[in-house]
Amino acid sequence: MAPLAKKVLLHYGGGSLKRSGIYKEITSSLRENGVGFVELGGVVPNPRLSLVRAGVELCRSEGVDLILAAGGGSVIDSAKAIAMGACHDEDVWDFFEGNASAKNALPLAVVLTIPAAGSESSPVSVISNEEKKLKIGYHCDLLRPFASVVNPELFFTLPKNQIANGVADMMSHIFERYFTNTAHTDLTDGLCEAALRTIIKNAPLLMDDQRNYDAWAEIAFSSTLAHNGLLGMGREEDWASHRIEHQLSAVYDIAHGAGLAVIIPFWMEYVCGDNAGMFAQFAMNVMGAAPSRDIEGLAAEGIARLRAFFSRLGLPSSLCDFGIDGRDFEFMAKNATGAAFGAEKPLGGLKKLLWQDVLEIYRLAV
Amino acid sequence: MAPLAKKVLLHYGGGSLKRSGIYKEITSSLRENGVGFVELGGVVPNPRLSLVRAGVELCRSEGVDLILAAGGGSVIDSAKAIAMGACHDEDVWDFFEGNASAKNALPLAVVLTIPAAGSESSPVSVISNEEKKLKIGYHCDLLRPFASVVNPELFFTLPKNQIANGVADMMSHIFERYFTNTAHTDLTDGLCEAALRTIIKNAPLLMDDQRNYDAWAEIAFSSTLAHNGLLGMGREEDWASHRIEHQLSAVYDIAHGAGLAVIIPFWMEYVCGDNAGMFAQFAMNVMGAAPSRDIEGLAAEGIARLRAFFSRLGLPSSLCDFGIDGRDFEFMAKNATGAAFGAEKPLGGLKKLLWQDVLEIYRLAV
Repeated sequence: MAPLAKKVLLHYGGGSLKRSGIYKEITSSLRENGVGFVELGGVVPNPRLSLVRAGVELCRSEGVDLILAAGGGSVIDSAKAIAMGACHDEDVWDFFEGNASAKNALPLAVVLTIPAAGSESSPVSVISNEEKKLKIGYHCDLLRPFASVVNPELFFTLPKNQIANGVADMMSHIFERYFTNTAHTDLTDGLCEAALRTIIKNAPLLMDDQRNYDAWAEIAFSSTLAHNGLLGMGREEDWASHRIEHQLSAVYDIAHGAGLAVIIPFWMEYVCGDNAGMFAQFAMNVMGAAPSRDIEGLAAEGIARLRAFFSRLGLPSSLCDFGIDGRDFEFMAKNATGAAFGAEKPLGGLKKLLWQDVLEIYRLAV
Repeated sequence: MAPLAKKVLLHYGGGSLKRSGIYKEITSSLRENGVGFVELGGVVPNPRLSLVRAGVELCRSEGVDLILAAGGGSVIDSAKAIAMGACHDEDVWDFFEGNASAKNALPLAVVLTIPAAGSESSPVSVISNEEKKLKIGYHCDLLRPFASVVNPELFFTLPKNQIANGVADMMSHIFERYFTNTAHTDLTDGLCEAALRTIIKNAPLLMDDQRNYDAWAEIAFSSTLAHNGLLGMGREEDWASHRIEHQLSAVYDIAHGAGLAVIIPFWMEYVCGDNAGMFAQFAMNVMGAAPSRDIEGLAAEGIARLRAFFSRLGLPSSLCDFGIDGRDFEFMAKNATGAAFGAEKPLGGLKKLLWQDVLEIYRLAV
């Protein structure tokens, strides 16, 4: 079989790919199969536009015709932006600011090194512009990887706090789709609940044994499914928790998954009165609460059980755990909704949140 | 936006497409958008090789660059074979007999008129060679439609027996993947169960009201998901029931879904002793049986509940309902496993079935 590409850009982050031996395995495989490649490492969390631009230049000068991203969400997001930028004359940031629309992209393959962000199956790239101090996502089906290697054995050496953060991240991708006011969602309700139950059953097994192949297979498959779009089909999605957390990681540079583990339960408590039935269903079908007619009680029980689950994974439960006080909350709340720029757009689907609501959630989370 | 194609082959079955107004809607839309098209109707159940060959010729002589299949599984399967045949010099039957391997296919879009076969999302085409009296499937990702219109409103006028047959068919696609001895299948177990519960909840609503949009949406989405490959990922699949039923529809020309509704419960009873835990899980998680330690009792209850569900939809429960006696059973059983040609390959995954097992299932089903 002929190789898919003549010249590959191998894109990755820091030294862990080399320490783990994955770098060597990939480059040996490329050489053995006679596939030429250039490489670009150095992707950092919140992947930078400057590196994306360097990657675009490299693809052009080297005639790259396929990108191979080896890493987690940041590496894959950076690779998506390069894949798009390499096929257009416009500066790649124009797409993120909405001044250009992608017409093509280089094919992108992935070797996943941590299940969390779901970028290996999603059509989204989020890039940080360090000069403009902006972090913006671009959504286009051309960015979806055509193939992703999701091999449990590559996850055996991940530290437990990264596993836990990843679990919170993948669960959040399901929550953002699951909690909705849309009616007649039998199938996707059931799919979301199946994925959440799978994660909740298997994540503790990884805390006991990071080399549990079967638990990793269940977790990684769930994470990939969480963000490929299927679970949100026909549902109004929410995404308020992500927007609220995003300010936290932007201002305090905390891990996205850890921030979500704090914010999500407080968000749930703040909004659940608007659709207690949905939260009662969550309590029974996902968190194992016994059926009851007390819908509000069930809703509260589901949230309490989720908090207990996050704690069991060693995830933080309050912003105090990060040493965050309330100093920046109003600034962050106004940034989250756009009120800071005089262009407020309420967050969320299940309940619309203005900046005052967001501020209240930050305050509750301390 | 430029059209996807310059010249479309519109492929369909008989008069129902014209009676329903769908034919007119599609052809008007093509004309309004300036897309040239030729048409080829006349697809029958168990779609014929002769029509496929005619379609291939038509595509070549007319320079067709996209096929639009408007119909159910037979029309879509026929269109897949044409899409493949039009791109190769070999005779299209060579692919089905394993003498050629597809390298390309015309892009295929679908307007679905009945949810049942799942062909709108599957990479499989099954074609009948009337001269050789053979019915063979060909599996290749190039055959998967790139887009399928699944619109509940197009299903409002389907007769109830066709709805019921379709429901049995789509459930069978899940059963063939769900019942397995493969271990560590938390996620796909849950996905299968969610789809089955969705069908079981919504199918009776259609028996009461064929114009229930939301019930159709749930059923059709489940049917599409049932056969696109996701639910079988990482599982040994079974497919014995399909192979056993196939002889019935070949010899007695009964509807595939109706035949499955008879065979599946008898197959379940015959094999469930080999993995009673799987059938007990089915009883509790799909059929609503109360948890119990009596695994064998649960397994039997699940099967009984499935039979009751099929009856409620008006589906047959015995081969007597078709007026079938035992005359051809040995011939059919030996055909099903290949023993008739001296090349027996046991059927099934959960339990391997020889022709004597298949014969016994036919006898039980009378």
